[in-house]
Amino acid sequence: MRLRLIFRHRGVIPQALTNLTAVQGLRPLHVTPSTMADKKLFTPGPLGTSMSVKQAMLRDLGSRDVEFISLVKYIRTKLCKIAGVPQSEFTAVPMQGSGTYGVESVFQTACPRKGANVLCIENGAYGKRLGKICDVMGVKYRVLSFPENEFVDPVAVQKALKGDRSITMVAMVHCETSSGVFNPVVEVGQLVKHELPGSVFFVDAMSSFGAVPLDLMRGHVDFLVSSANKCLEGVPGFAYVIARISELNKCKGNSRSLSLDVFDQYENLEKTSQFRFTPPTHAMLAFSQALRELDSEGGVAGRSARYSENCELLKAGMKEMGFKEFLEPKHKGYIITSFRFPQHPNFNFNTFYTKLNEKDQVIYPGKVLNADCFRIGNIGHLFPADMKHLLACVREVCKDMGMPLPLT
Amino acid sequence: MRLRLIFRHRGVIPQALTNLTAVQGLRPLHVTPSTMADKKLFTPGPLGTSMSVKQAMLRDLGSRDVEFISLVKYIRTKLCKIAGVPQSEFTAVPMQGSGTYGVESVFQTACPRKGANVLCIENGAYGKRLGKICDVMGVKYRVLSFPENEFVDPVAVQKALKGDRSITMVAMVHCETSSGVFNPVVEVGQLVKHELPGSVFFVDAMSSFGAVPLDLMRGHVDFLVSSANKCLEGVPGFAYVIARISELNKCKGNSRSLSLDVFDQYENLEKTSQFRFTPPTHAMLAFSQALRELDSEGGVAGRSARYSENCELLKAGMKEMGFKEFLEPKHKGYIITSFRFPQHPNFNFNTFYTKLNEKDQVIYPGKVLNADCFRIGNIGHLFPADMKHLLACVREVCKDMGMPLPLT
Ligand SMILES: Cc1ncc(COP(=O)(O)O)c(C=O)c1O
Ligand SMILES: Cc1ncc(COP(=O)(O)O)c(C=O)c1O
Repeated sequence: MRLRLIFRHRGVIPQALTNLTAVQGLRPLHVTPSTMADKKLFTPGPLGTSMSVKQAMLRDLGSRDVEFISLVKYIRTKLCKIAGVPQSEFTAVPMQGSGTYGVESVFQTACPRKGANVLCIENGAYGKRLGKICDVMGVKYRVLSFPENEFVDPVAVQKALKGDRSITMVAMVHCETSSGVFNPVVEVGQLVKHELPGSVFFVDAMSSFGAVPLDLMRGHVDFLVSSANKCLEGVPGFAYVIARISELNKCKGNSRSLSLDVFDQYENLEKTSQFRFTPPTHAMLAFSQALRELDSEGGVAGRSARYSENCELLKAGMKEMGFKEFLEPKHKGYIITSFRFPQHPNFNFNTFYTKLNEKDQVIYPGKVLNADCFRIGNIGHLFPADMKHLLACVREVCKDMGMPLPLT
Repeated sequence: MRLRLIFRHRGVIPQALTNLTAVQGLRPLHVTPSTMADKKLFTPGPLGTSMSVKQAMLRDLGSRDVEFISLVKYIRTKLCKIAGVPQSEFTAVPMQGSGTYGVESVFQTACPRKGANVLCIENGAYGKRLGKICDVMGVKYRVLSFPENEFVDPVAVQKALKGDRSITMVAMVHCETSSGVFNPVVEVGQLVKHELPGSVFFVDAMSSFGAVPLDLMRGHVDFLVSSANKCLEGVPGFAYVIARISELNKCKGNSRSLSLDVFDQYENLEKTSQFRFTPPTHAMLAFSQALRELDSEGGVAGRSARYSENCELLKAGMKEMGFKEFLEPKHKGYIITSFRFPQHPNFNFNTFYTKLNEKDQVIYPGKVLNADCFRIGNIGHLFPADMKHLLACVREVCKDMGMPLPLT
């Protein structure tokens, strides 16, 4: 608690800004202190962003302004490039709201009002949510489940597809963020197109897009969703759909929601370069800055390298302390790592979490799996030095809690 | 164009920030220039916000953090206070997305899956959108239309209600932003409850909430929607629903959309003080700062006074130049004003708009009415001095276009 207070007195910048804007003849600012005192977020979202990404939001852009219109174009073009898909075949459509809004918008748009039948593949909380969305929408669906510590098995998917020729869409998660498993999207997509060539293949790549290479073309992906505040390191506020144009064009009039209609949003963006409704201009300014920073880092390869390094440091450091991973080594995910609760009688997750939090290290209490686990994410504006500092904090907390290291 | 360039070179603050953060030992910043060179937005949204509101976004908050949880509580409590409703009877539920998402979320939540029958009252573009949303949702509805330059007429509403006892919800707009008309919400609400005591009364108060007093209790309003980037002067990113708890509690399971389910969002907020999905933390930080600034200005009364003064200056100045208002003087709206295109042969709206835009004054091309009009808004971070400057710019532009003043 003392540490927080010290930080709060560091408020140099707001005061300086006040003076500077006064010089510029702008209105005086009522700045709240503690502007720079962020905790480090080792969570899958909201996650940390760079100061320059946040500073890009210090503007109010009109939505009809040429500058905003070119911002939207830049973002849409760039997203297709990151996805590695040609803009002649694919389009990127920003959709307001969180990632779940983006996922639902694809179901709303790509499931016809009559006759839709979705196969939802799940091996964790986010896969289960795919089924939940269909359920609420009143769309016919079936869930194909796998254990939380296993990959989705393409052979089982193939069997399911052979067993029900009325399936119109197959939906799955790329990185199942509740465990950290990377699922074999390309293998499944190839089977889907082989077994049911007329069906739609939809991938929730929320926590992987931009940092985990995925070949959409080889995987025959028709729709992919991710959000601004994941691996691309923008602030939360909107999601985006990468859509195969030929499939999207079949979707007119499907959506039972005006707000979540990807086709309508796409058509309007193409016609007018504008959103249908007031856009989240600040979140989009931040995102375009975030995309520039992705470039500076060397694109998807660079980001993937940093996250991999973060994750390796984390895994090695935790292992050294005796923490055990939930997943077996064959799982090479590098977005978020699940650790089993230590067996030591002094371990209590709430205490562990709170003590780390007091050191400004926020881990993820998150989704409940079938095993007692906690999760540590390594995406967002986190660097190897941050991972090392977190590990040092974990050491201190273990000591504090009377848990000698290494744990056994 | 030259003016814009001059502004761009004023980039003092970003550089200063770079130095200061370097002193603080933070990562160096990649700041883009032109951070402070915003155009003035005389539009109904996105609209301008104070620099301190935007600066509140220079942080990344975890969504499970005590600070974020108390932020959410503060916002919800404050919204009920601004609405003038007791928290024992009403609740405020933030919903991600733009205002339209908020409006749709009420339809999704308060219309049962079977048997819903909505009366949508309209006298402009946003009233028409109420019907559009029902249409897309597949909810039975009827539109009761009034001319765009007239108030909604309570007597006609009463007749419609008497003519159809199966109506389950009446929906209308408070300030119809496409013309600027303030509709008689309280009168209509009283009739609704008198004629059909079991029905739900829903008000879209997007562009009026927080600046135009409205007695929700006397008007028997059950659901009201507005958004962060209107009269409360936050940044765009979420809307909010003020809901009568007894009505909301009847809505479990109604929504055909997971994302837009106000009941589900409410239940989760009450249980855990958290959003169901990743919240737009930055937009919410900005909003809580905006609410503090509303207080400093003297609450709804203070904001209403500033907007009224802005609007009076605008109307007087435009009248002096010979511009004619679309609405008759009985309309005392003070949010946005519609002006008829001048008859002068040199007038061309695109030229007029562009020349004002070149002077960093953004007016509203906006919705097409049945008459040739343009609109000028006076809400957001605008002050009498800004209105005077806009008027001076209009004068210059008229001169430039060879339209001698006053116009005849
Ligand atoms: C794989 C996956 N899907 C969906 C979501 C939901 O996203 P949001 O919380 O932004 O709605 C998440 C969030 O972490 C996710 O990791
Ligand atoms: C009365 C009214 N309703 C609805 C909306 C739609 O809001 P949004 O553009 O944020 O979706 C607006 C926007 O100005 C409005 O003024």
